[in-house]
Amino acid sequence: MSTISPVRERFDAELTHLATLTDSTRPGWTRRALSEEDIAGRDFARSLMRQAGLTTRVDGAGNVIGVLPGRLGGRQIMLGSHTDTVDGGGRFDGITGVLGAIEVVRLLRENDIRLDHDLVIVVFFNEEPNDFGFFCLGSRAMTGLVDRSTLAATDSTGRTLAQALPDSGIDPEEFLTSGFDFTNVTAFLELHIEQGPELERGGAQIGVVETITGINHFRALFTGRQDHAGTTSMSVRADAGCAAAGTVLAVESIAESGTNTRGTSGQIRFTPEAVNVVSENAVVEGEFRGPDGSWLHEAARRLTEAAGQEADRRGVTMEIEWTTDDAPVPLNQPITATITEAAAELGLSRSRMFSGAGHDAGIIAAKTQVGMIFVPSVDGRSHCPEEFTALDDVLPGISVLLETVLRLDGSLRH
Amino acid sequence: MSTISPVRERFDAELTHLATLTDSTRPGWTRRALSEEDIAGRDFARSLMRQAGLTTRVDGAGNVIGVLPGRLGGRQIMLGSHTDTVDGGGRFDGITGVLGAIEVVRLLRENDIRLDHDLVIVVFFNEEPNDFGFFCLGSRAMTGLVDRSTLAATDSTGRTLAQALPDSGIDPEEFLTSGFDFTNVTAFLELHIEQGPELERGGAQIGVVETITGINHFRALFTGRQDHAGTTSMSVRADAGCAAAGTVLAVESIAESGTNTRGTSGQIRFTPEAVNVVSENAVVEGEFRGPDGSWLHEAARRLTEAAGQEADRRGVTMEIEWTTDDAPVPLNQPITATITEAAAELGLSRSRMFSGAGHDAGIIAAKTQVGMIFVPSVDGRSHCPEEFTALDDVLPGISVLLETVLRLDGSLRH
Repeated sequence: MSTISPVRERFDAELTHLATLTDSTRPGWTRRALSEEDIAGRDFARSLMRQAGLTTRVDGAGNVIGVLPGRLGGRQIMLGSHTDTVDGGGRFDGITGVLGAIEVVRLLRENDIRLDHDLVIVVFFNEEPNDFGFFCLGSRAMTGLVDRSTLAATDSTGRTLAQALPDSGIDPEEFLTSGFDFTNVTAFLELHIEQGPELERGGAQIGVVETITGINHFRALFTGRQDHAGTTSMSVRADAGCAAAGTVLAVESIAESGTNTRGTSGQIRFTPEAVNVVSENAVVEGEFRGPDGSWLHEAARRLTEAAGQEADRRGVTMEIEWTTDDAPVPLNQPITATITEAAAELGLSRSRMFSGAGHDAGIIAAKTQVGMIFVPSVDGRSHCPEEFTALDDVLPGISVLLETVLRLDGSLRH
Repeated sequence: MSTISPVRERFDAELTHLATLTDSTRPGWTRRALSEEDIAGRDFARSLMRQAGLTTRVDGAGNVIGVLPGRLGGRQIMLGSHTDTVDGGGRFDGITGVLGAIEVVRLLRENDIRLDHDLVIVVFFNEEPNDFGFFCLGSRAMTGLVDRSTLAATDSTGRTLAQALPDSGIDPEEFLTSGFDFTNVTAFLELHIEQGPELERGGAQIGVVETITGINHFRALFTGRQDHAGTTSMSVRADAGCAAAGTVLAVESIAESGTNTRGTSGQIRFTPEAVNVVSENAVVEGEFRGPDGSWLHEAARRLTEAAGQEADRRGVTMEIEWTTDDAPVPLNQPITATITEAAAELGLSRSRMFSGAGHDAGIIAAKTQVGMIFVPSVDGRSHCPEEFTALDDVLPGISVLLETVLRLDGSLRH
């Protein structure tokens, strides 16, 4: 099947068009979930899916789902990724997998290949973190991991997710009941950029993901006492801001102690925000990641202890909330082996990988056997405007995706 | 003159009314400079000044100036303070001195006392820090300490002070030329709440200020590299946020090393603000205060060095800007002695004080001899909604202000 090649020009044109559906007031290519641009991005993907001959629908959680019926019907192979971005993000994260999956459908049809399985393409809603503390929201809804507490979560303005969803055309009640029936899904595959430097560094064209990182998100709230910065001596203040700053450094040092472990404080705010006022409140939001679940639990324990100490020694109180606690996900060994064989068949160099990024594939893994195919990222940069993968590096990934689908369609035949 | 007593009910009513001219969407009693509430606050003070028999005007920098002509004319005694507040501030800071000065005018007139000096009452514009990095802006304009670089300063949205001033009815060109002629001002007095715990702790009714703190404001900008928080290993990231957090802790530890010295980081922001992105930029704004100018210079040098080290060891670059560099102000000894005598004459307990807060009096001290009278603050709290001084503690301060004016009017007679 290695004679079938993805069509560079149409992938390029679609990538370029998606890059225009972004928030021009923000840096990079910003298409955050729950924005108008995100609606436009998923609408564009749906129109491409229709043109490729898929029957499409949008489920109750904003996921765009397209189906190419198979010869035998009943059993399904699912491909998917997302089109939303972080603020100031790039043009490739998620988008490569969406456009790549649609290209696979076109290549099958153009080459008159009829699969036995139905091929299901999903553009997942809201993969990147939203302002309500969630990520992979669409895939969580499809796998039944959302409930009323999800809807009740608030952003910094106090608005609930239930209040925000209708702006994206999502009914909160339907959101809760939009679980997908995975009974007949025999495999899920996601093509994605690596977002890290390993493939480029090792000179490999294809990454075969063995484990998707575990992620713990936290929000630490510090409450001190608001005081005049000039008249309140250092010894009597309860400075919530200093306790928060100490916590940021604790995240860094805990993460530096592990292997393949990461810790990041992405946000911090003092209240009130005034140069001459001792902060009454401070909040830090951040995360730990790593391939080892027990390390993640230990990191959470150590940070809770360190943040408590930073607070205690300043007369500040501290509450920490672990808003996400996703264990590391080992991917399915037979699927991983099939991806490796497909890459070998196509003469592509390949490398077994750990994914430090979380993915919808990690959520779907609870429901079916899952594989991920990575292509290199220049300088390992991602979640920034500089995020880049040359088309020469993307197209082999699409070829591996197609070849893997064909092999799975054969080997998983009932 | 100790038989003349301030009238509790009208002071109380005016204080209560001013507390209604606040931003109801913010905590405490918020009337920030450059807001509509601030215009209303100064208008109300002006109406009280007119009712008290003063001839009033607003100068080109938004300062409300009222004059009670003296018998001899020519020479002037000036009293003043401010009505603007910090975000989430209290009802007494500044306001006590404005209403106290107006009460002094009324008491003089009601008791048919005609001073030799003109009595000039000033409600200074914008004493508290604004979003453009300035405080004591009105008194700086009156003393000629503003220029085109002041007007060019920007807030976080990029708006210049020149663009913001017209909303408060201030013409930028007139702002630059609103210097006051201090040639004939023989003394300036400011009544103020202590905003600290010393008077209450020592059981003294009146604080006689000997030195007003020096203040250095800084803004430190860190530039790292925006990266994916999951795929970028700890060893290769350039996390601007961690460098900023380390700087917050450096401010705290440097300030803890001095005597009567304070250091506060009032604001911190990471960019972008996303839980799964390594920060590209971070900014910390803060300040040092102390009674010793050489310590302040040393603190600035040490912080610049520490922030540079926090940046360097993370591959981050750092720029620090010292936006304010006000030296400590020793107040005028003869005026201080007169305040002490006035308090003694009235049978009030008194204490010599260091002011950890900055005041318009510290700016005016460059132009004339200055004295400050403090009254106690409950629990030393200020710049917060809990800021409180009982009327029983405010009224003796007004009596001392009146008695000091009478003594200066006599002793400074030409």
